[in-house]
Amino acid sequence: MNAAIIRQHRQANQIRPICITPHFMPHAEGSVLIECGNTKVICTASVEEGVPGFLRGQGLGWVTAEYGMLPRSTHSRMRREAAAGKQSGRTQEIQRLIGRSLRAVVDRSKLGERQILIDCDVIAADGGTRTASITGAFVAMQLAINGLLAKGLIAENPIIEAIAAVSVGVVDGVALLDLDYPEDSGCDSDVNVVMTQSGKIVEVQGTAEGATFSINELNELLQLAQSGINELLEHQQRALQSQAA
Amino acid sequence: MNAAIIRQHRQANQIRPICITPHFMPHAEGSVLIECGNTKVICTASVEEGVPGFLRGQGLGWVTAEYGMLPRSTHSRMRREAAAGKQSGRTQEIQRLIGRSLRAVVDRSKLGERQILIDCDVIAADGGTRTASITGAFVAMQLAINGLLAKGLIAENPIIEAIAAVSVGVVDGVALLDLDYPEDSGCDSDVNVVMTQSGKIVEVQGTAEGATFSINELNELLQLAQSGINELLEHQQRALQSQAA
Amino acid sequence: MNAAIIRQHRQANQIRPICITPHFMPHAEGSVLIECGNTKVICTASVEEGVPGFLRGQGLGWVTAEYGMLPRSTHSRMRREAAAGKQSGRTQEIQRLIGRSLRAVVDRSKLGERQILIDCDVIAADGGTRTASITGAFVAMQLAINGLLAKGLIAENPIIEAIAAVSVGVVDGVALLDLDYPEDSGCDSDVNVVMTQSGKIVEVQGTAEGATFSINELNELLQLAQSGINELLEHQQRALQSQAA
Amino acid sequence: MNAAIIRQHRQANQIRPICITPHFMPHAEGSVLIECGNTKVICTASVEEGVPGFLRGQGLGWVTAEYGMLPRSTHSRMRREAAAGKQSGRTQEIQRLIGRSLRAVVDRSKLGERQILIDCDVIAADGGTRTASITGAFVAMQLAINGLLAKGLIAENPIIEAIAAVSVGVVDGVALLDLDYPEDSGCDSDVNVVMTQSGKIVEVQGTAEGATFSINELNELLQLAQSGINELLEHQQRALQSQAA
Amino acid sequence: MNAAIIRQHRQANQIRPICITPHFMPHAEGSVLIECGNTKVICTASVEEGVPGFLRGQGLGWVTAEYGMLPRSTHSRMRREAAAGKQSGRTQEIQRLIGRSLRAVVDRSKLGERQILIDCDVIAADGGTRTASITGAFVAMQLAINGLLAKGLIAENPIIEAIAAVSVGVVDGVALLDLDYPEDSGCDSDVNVVMTQSGKIVEVQGTAEGATFSINELNELLQLAQSGINELLEHQQRALQSQAA
Amino acid sequence: MNAAIIRQHRQANQIRPICITPHFMPHAEGSVLIECGNTKVICTASVEEGVPGFLRGQGLGWVTAEYGMLPRSTHSRMRREAAAGKQSGRTQEIQRLIGRSLRAVVDRSKLGERQILIDCDVIAADGGTRTASITGAFVAMQLAINGLLAKGLIAENPIIEAIAAVSVGVVDGVALLDLDYPEDSGCDSDVNVVMTQSGKIVEVQGTAEGATFSINELNELLQLAQSGINELLEHQQRALQSQAA
Repeated sequence: MNAAIIRQHRQANQIRPICITPHFMPHAEGSVLIECGNTKVICTASVEEGVPGFLRGQGLGWVTAEYGMLPRSTHSRMRREAAAGKQSGRTQEIQRLIGRSLRAVVDRSKLGERQILIDCDVIAADGGTRTASITGAFVAMQLAINGLLAKGLIAENPIIEAIAAVSVGVVDGVALLDLDYPEDSGCDSDVNVVMTQSGKIVEVQGTAEGATFSINELNELLQLAQSGINELLEHQQRALQSQAA
Repeated sequence: MNAAIIRQHRQANQIRPICITPHFMPHAEGSVLIECGNTKVICTASVEEGVPGFLRGQGLGWVTAEYGMLPRSTHSRMRREAAAGKQSGRTQEIQRLIGRSLRAVVDRSKLGERQILIDCDVIAADGGTRTASITGAFVAMQLAINGLLAKGLIAENPIIEAIAAVSVGVVDGVALLDLDYPEDSGCDSDVNVVMTQSGKIVEVQGTAEGATFSINELNELLQLAQSGINELLEHQQRALQSQAA
Repeated sequence: MNAAIIRQHRQANQIRPICITPHFMPHAEGSVLIECGNTKVICTASVEEGVPGFLRGQGLGWVTAEYGMLPRSTHSRMRREAAAGKQSGRTQEIQRLIGRSLRAVVDRSKLGERQILIDCDVIAADGGTRTASITGAFVAMQLAINGLLAKGLIAENPIIEAIAAVSVGVVDGVALLDLDYPEDSGCDSDVNVVMTQSGKIVEVQGTAEGATFSINELNELLQLAQSGINELLEHQQRALQSQAA
Repeated sequence: MNAAIIRQHRQANQIRPICITPHFMPHAEGSVLIECGNTKVICTASVEEGVPGFLRGQGLGWVTAEYGMLPRSTHSRMRREAAAGKQSGRTQEIQRLIGRSLRAVVDRSKLGERQILIDCDVIAADGGTRTASITGAFVAMQLAINGLLAKGLIAENPIIEAIAAVSVGVVDGVALLDLDYPEDSGCDSDVNVVMTQSGKIVEVQGTAEGATFSINELNELLQLAQSGINELLEHQQRALQSQAA
Repeated sequence: MNAAIIRQHRQANQIRPICITPHFMPHAEGSVLIECGNTKVICTASVEEGVPGFLRGQGLGWVTAEYGMLPRSTHSRMRREAAAGKQSGRTQEIQRLIGRSLRAVVDRSKLGERQILIDCDVIAADGGTRTASITGAFVAMQLAINGLLAKGLIAENPIIEAIAAVSVGVVDGVALLDLDYPEDSGCDSDVNVVMTQSGKIVEVQGTAEGATFSINELNELLQLAQSGINELLEHQQRALQSQAA
Repeated sequence: MNAAIIRQHRQANQIRPICITPHFMPHAEGSVLIECGNTKVICTASVEEGVPGFLRGQGLGWVTAEYGMLPRSTHSRMRREAAAGKQSGRTQEIQRLIGRSLRAVVDRSKLGERQILIDCDVIAADGGTRTASITGAFVAMQLAINGLLAKGLIAENPIIEAIAAVSVGVVDGVALLDLDYPEDSGCDSDVNVVMTQSGKIVEVQGTAEGATFSINELNELLQLAQSGINELLEHQQRALQSQAA
């Protein structure tokens, strides 16, 4: 596949159009619809008093995540996981990644013994659903925490700093930012990066799908990811400020 | 519960505001977002060549349905069925109802040996999710069939006539049309009705939750349902015509 | 299929021979074998102290039901659900119907915090297994409650009134009462009715399998159902009185 | 527990009253209701053309068995295995034993590439359900094979010789034949024996529940078992002859 | 199959070379690697405070077992049970046998309200995995109990006497001790025996795979088993003494 | 936790003692026992003719992996996944990683339509089980492929180059190579690296467990990983050469 052909409408270092709609779900403590190009994910943050058994009595909160795709979010219909009776390995891998990423920026001692359950449900998939989920889930979680602060249920903001995520990859020898589905399918290597506002890495997952890559190539991809994440972090802040206003 | 109090903003015989957005999902052969008041359901129709084993070689098509709810479509978060490893009895009951209702108005010999898989995924729940699913799924199925006709894959429209569905119930002694969640929870009896354009019943499911009801009372509820269904059928046609234009 | 041919041995408005054998199971608090023609169902009512978690501390009892078929109750052997590892959608739909129907005639505040678990196990199936289950389960439940009253565990009879159930349908244009399996398979429309002694509807579930039906046709079927249910209610009372004697 | 007390109504070497009712199930190729005292099991034999994949093309038949208990066949209600979503270890152990026992007396080359599926469903349990299942299942299988012979589907009787099964055990130091549930619960050691008409052992499963036993004690129990099995074999033949007449 | 051919390297009444390596697993309270010829099983005994719910408050301990095979412990790769989502009937049968056998020689009142969980994991399978598991598990359990005694957590040794297990069978008319896989596959009848140091039977499970066997033949096999078990008991004691030294 | 204290016995840039024992399993086409310090994993490679359905007819082979832990490989006993009825998210994540890593260095067109199934079973766990699995599985796969080449089943070696894997992490501010379990539990960030002989990255998975890390810190960790992987690659070659001799 020729990267030049794929990327007709944006530069190699350009992310897709982003739209974050806060309070998308009427019932959730925090929620957004995040659209990254044609990828659309509903992210909700549900607050529940109490923590799982292994944490009880330690004064620490918990953040965990679940991920799903509507059966026809994809080009061909996928089997519904509830009907299949289990979540796929891919689903479990993604939801564990989302949970770990969010926990990395939460001071759980400030959350108290309560749990934030993140749900990321993909309405339409065009590549980058796991990174869009993380970027959106952060805003949903912040909104839920804002509610806890407003109600006086917690005294201090437990969020250490903001995070966002993006995928980068090498397609036809060219490093591309924010791969869509055709790019992702055709890419030689694919790296998902979760980073903080201060430029620290929270998670990096690089896979050589077609061709292995050198440490230098990884560094080039990480720089590209950082530029995209900085933009995503601005979108998050704008979405949060529109709420505060 | 006092029906008069609940129904402040609409008459007992008035349905909730309806909005049917066709082609809501980019990949599906047919799809809508249906909004009935605060209830929102994405309905997609996926066309697959071939039929399940028990039908092979008979020249007949098949229509089947699956139903799901996003975990936070409800006031409190529900457990994700894919994570629980099975669909609840309620989910199975509803998806069987949707499938039967649609099959009742399809001449399967005109469909050929292909299958229409309906997915109804509830984004927000405020009562009447199964009836909204049927009303929306009919439009999604019609759109998918329009595509088959346009491509010349089938010669004749296999749809016999349109169907729509609504719930009716007695709340505090008053017969109400199109119950929302507080009304549904507080009602004495609850009847879901699926009807055709010609006023024929496809499915009727009446349950005495709080108080049993007489045949006369059932008839009163059926009349009320029919008036609502007539309105829903008009909304369906408008949504379909907006597409045709 | 020609209704006249099918119904050689009974009138269109005649139910099949009914036999209700109380105390069929040695261990259960209440039990019957109900035979409706060639359909045979063992119904037991088991009393357990305590209620499910969601009801605890409210002073209310609970009634719930499970349904199963012996693998060779049917003409061809069915797969054993325990071996398959799950209950089918049909099984779940039926057991939910049985449970709802019985709860509709029980004043749960008079039952105290205890549970009546109904088991309906089909030994031989020739149509109408769900309605036979309800008719039989009512007797089993009454027998179990008689035991609670006799032991002084409850002060007042929590049963509001008796219920029974029957199926009605249109076969070859003729309305028939109490369909057996060949009639059920060949019918255009099929309505299951659960009614009380006072003629009130507890559940009505009508499905247009071959042809939709009008409100008038539904009314004709409901009248037919009521006549059959009245007869079934007499059989129930005779079975209960034979015990009391 | 005192054996003398338990065994008030029969001798230590006496089996319980046996009743084998052939053709108990209307649809099965072979079936019986077997009653051993208060233990009642429905055994059916279903004939299916074809064999499981691992046997295809070898010209050999197959015999396999499934076992289940109605939830209220026992003194306290057991959880329904279909609802639990799996068969217990005990159930699997028993159904494997039934299948192995029957295969041991079938010349599978004479059966052709067809399968006999045995279902043993316990209606009432008072000890010895697995041995009653084997004794009854043999008759059901013979009836099914008689049908195959009568239809000319097989040329020769594939059954090598008859089998029956009984439990024996030591209760309070006394060797007892055909334990009922109170005896089984109170016994020191428990041996299930499956034997042929010619006195050969097909299966022997001895378990020291309370006290280990010597080889001599095992021999005493086996003699006791053989005398009981001889009686059971006569009951089987009488049931089969009543059919042939 | 000709027994003389199979048994080239050992006598009919000879067991395979035995090697029991204590403390094979670094973390377990008790563990061994047991090698019986080419069969290798890791047996661990894990001590957990507390007992399952049905035993709570009775002052009795519990011993239970689980069994598994590495997918490539066998000649052809077996499906991994964790991936299949359930344990086979054979696995459940074996682990129930191991648990019952060990409980038969433990005075559970001396164990206190704690549980010994035995894990038997087959690394390489060449016949006799269940009997090797029992023989090895006994040593692992004894080691774990030695630890409890050494720590003063229990006052008296709850083990009544040692047990070991072996299989015996008739191959080509010859009674053979300690069958390996080719012998087991080719044998006419197969008996697994669990016996104590004092020569008492704990479990005997005899199956006529190819040919039924007489009571006399069973006795011959039991004598053969006893001689093998006596040798195995010595190996166990040597392994335990090497530890004590 | 203080890194200096933990690392008493080796340098920060030193891997644990490695021992790779080829042909550890008698039946598998390729197998090793790999020991990295106290972590021990059995890796087998099973060759099966044919490929999964989605690959059929394309002339391409497949490599896939499964991972498991013995219940008592860990300090406290873990629940057996086969008994739990499902593999954990962690297990699925790890086995997907192993499979992807190996596929990245196999030219599947040279493998033909056959499948290599890798099984990695952890006997003892002391950190780094997933990286030890990859390092060992590569050798097992190479041994299996050597067999295919020796038998002439494939013409050319499909392995592009060798891979090995190691974990690196920051503990108490110090970058450490090849973390053991106490180090892994106490570390701020943890990166698993899979690299080829030519120094290219196949997979990199970095997680900020306690503290996020900069791109510079990641680079330092990658350099450390590369030095460890070079050593592991030598151990692999020595193990393979010992076989060839």
